[in-house]
Amino acid sequence: MSIDNLIKDIISKKSPIVVGLDPRMDSIPTEIIERYKHLEQHPSEIVKNSFIEFNKGIIDGVSDLVPAVKVQVAFYEQYGIAGMEAYVETCRYAREKGLYVIADVKRGDIGSTSKAYSKAYLGEVEYDGERINDFYADSLTVNPYLGDDCLSEFVNDIHDYNKSMFVLVKTSNPSSSQLQDLKVDGKPIYEIVGEMVDSWCDRTKNPSGYSSVGAVVGATHPQELEQLRKIMPKAYFLVPGYGAQGGGGKDVVGAFNRDGLGAIVNSSRGVIFAYKKSELPYKEAARKAVMDMKEDINGALEEAGKKYW
Amino acid sequence: MSIDNLIKDIISKKSPIVVGLDPRMDSIPTEIIERYKHLEQHPSEIVKNSFIEFNKGIIDGVSDLVPAVKVQVAFYEQYGIAGMEAYVETCRYAREKGLYVIADVKRGDIGSTSKAYSKAYLGEVEYDGERINDFYADSLTVNPYLGDDCLSEFVNDIHDYNKSMFVLVKTSNPSSSQLQDLKVDGKPIYEIVGEMVDSWCDRTKNPSGYSSVGAVVGATHPQELEQLRKIMPKAYFLVPGYGAQGGGGKDVVGAFNRDGLGAIVNSSRGVIFAYKKSELPYKEAARKAVMDMKEDINGALEEAGKKYW
Repeated sequence: MSIDNLIKDIISKKSPIVVGLDPRMDSIPTEIIERYKHLEQHPSEIVKNSFIEFNKGIIDGVSDLVPAVKVQVAFYEQYGIAGMEAYVETCRYAREKGLYVIADVKRGDIGSTSKAYSKAYLGEVEYDGERINDFYADSLTVNPYLGDDCLSEFVNDIHDYNKSMFVLVKTSNPSSSQLQDLKVDGKPIYEIVGEMVDSWCDRTKNPSGYSSVGAVVGATHPQELEQLRKIMPKAYFLVPGYGAQGGGGKDVVGAFNRDGLGAIVNSSRGVIFAYKKSELPYKEAARKAVMDMKEDINGALEEAGKKYW
Repeated sequence: MSIDNLIKDIISKKSPIVVGLDPRMDSIPTEIIERYKHLEQHPSEIVKNSFIEFNKGIIDGVSDLVPAVKVQVAFYEQYGIAGMEAYVETCRYAREKGLYVIADVKRGDIGSTSKAYSKAYLGEVEYDGERINDFYADSLTVNPYLGDDCLSEFVNDIHDYNKSMFVLVKTSNPSSSQLQDLKVDGKPIYEIVGEMVDSWCDRTKNPSGYSSVGAVVGATHPQELEQLRKIMPKAYFLVPGYGAQGGGGKDVVGAFNRDGLGAIVNSSRGVIFAYKKSELPYKEAARKAVMDMKEDINGALEEAGKKYW
């Protein structure tokens, strides 16, 4: 699906929100885990099946409320092959439910290697008449440290398969400042990366006017969000850091354009583990967390005169 | 295994060389592929079994000549679960043969996510009494764009599991200059990242004096190699870009200290697909390519007065 499909769904669901599916065994409801333990499955299988059941439950709980999910592959990779099988099934199920799937993989390498990563997450490889695309997603996140010959490999598949990507510009973590805020002739690195992204935007525009090459900009940096919005007017922003990491509706308003579009805000723990601070079962708690988040963000957008609905 | 185990093996094999196991279906000898095709296996299984047989052949051909292999995970990820199974079996076999296994994964994320990547490739997760560590390696490569709170998660597991890591400082690709060469108060970014690495070195020193936190510096930048050697005297350098990417023995000398140690040079295509420019079968061709590379690098080191043997 293209970025325009995502935009259409954002508008129809009135929800510039993406739910992060980052499962942790110590936070998944015990009744899910116990079910597989009672079947005396191998620990890897218990993890895999618990991840899948939990994620499907979250997806069922929120798929009519949000246009997209973001799957942080590290939480699956740490459980090896079984973890990656849970990743595959999670992405498949999310797509089946019509959600836009963002693979949060933060890959990036020299050209020939980036091409392989791109085939893994955006495109496909063909062998002996069979198309292999287990890790299929609609979009992925990319690290810019290796420069344009890395990015260009992903852009090729974005064109060929009608996908999108989000380049890390300014991340939400505390030590993001260490490299990203260093100044080159008075200009911070994250702005320079923003300009790199903007130059790709011109070459990857969709009918909506928005580009298939977007940017990751953390909710924990409201001022930088506004500045970066100006530098990359046509890039969609993927905004992590809402909720558990500290950002709120007012902090993310700067990520949006005057048309109320241009950004999608992620919440992971704050949604999927909302049941821990609630009386509700986990699906309902996730649903409520999304509705609260929607109200918070749409309210802030309305107040800022950035209504998109 | 620690970086000191690697150093010991470098000296005993007289070989500061790492072979990159980056298989491609269009370059693997057809007799290998045909074997699995004749068994009428599913295309994914043909790929997986061809990768495993080919890699084992290369490992058998070179394991007495080199101390380490580097496994570029992208080439496996593109084939999905079957590809990752080939990755697992390749790493397992290389370890069985006593080789130091470097997972070239270039991961990096915010703290809690980097922790999961670190568990995937350096440490392990425990669940229900079972240790899960499918993607086990001795070392991994890390992208520095997210700063110290990312790196620190890997350093924790390096301590706990006696492993090492290589941080991307100056990569071998043409567009590495785009971000990495930008100057902050007259100092290029790659030097600043080098200083970040050096500050970690003090906290992760081994009995040899070398640190468990190393750096990736491309052979395609001989001058930068010398400069970075001065900035990070205690870091081991992983040097890609030899051979197919253009670097030769003289280009990599600057990566080594006066003691002739401090660097390990990678060649992937130039070794594993050497048979394509040779009359020899692929294992023997790989063996010969390694011996030529050894002579080239050791000769250049001797000429520079950097003998380690």
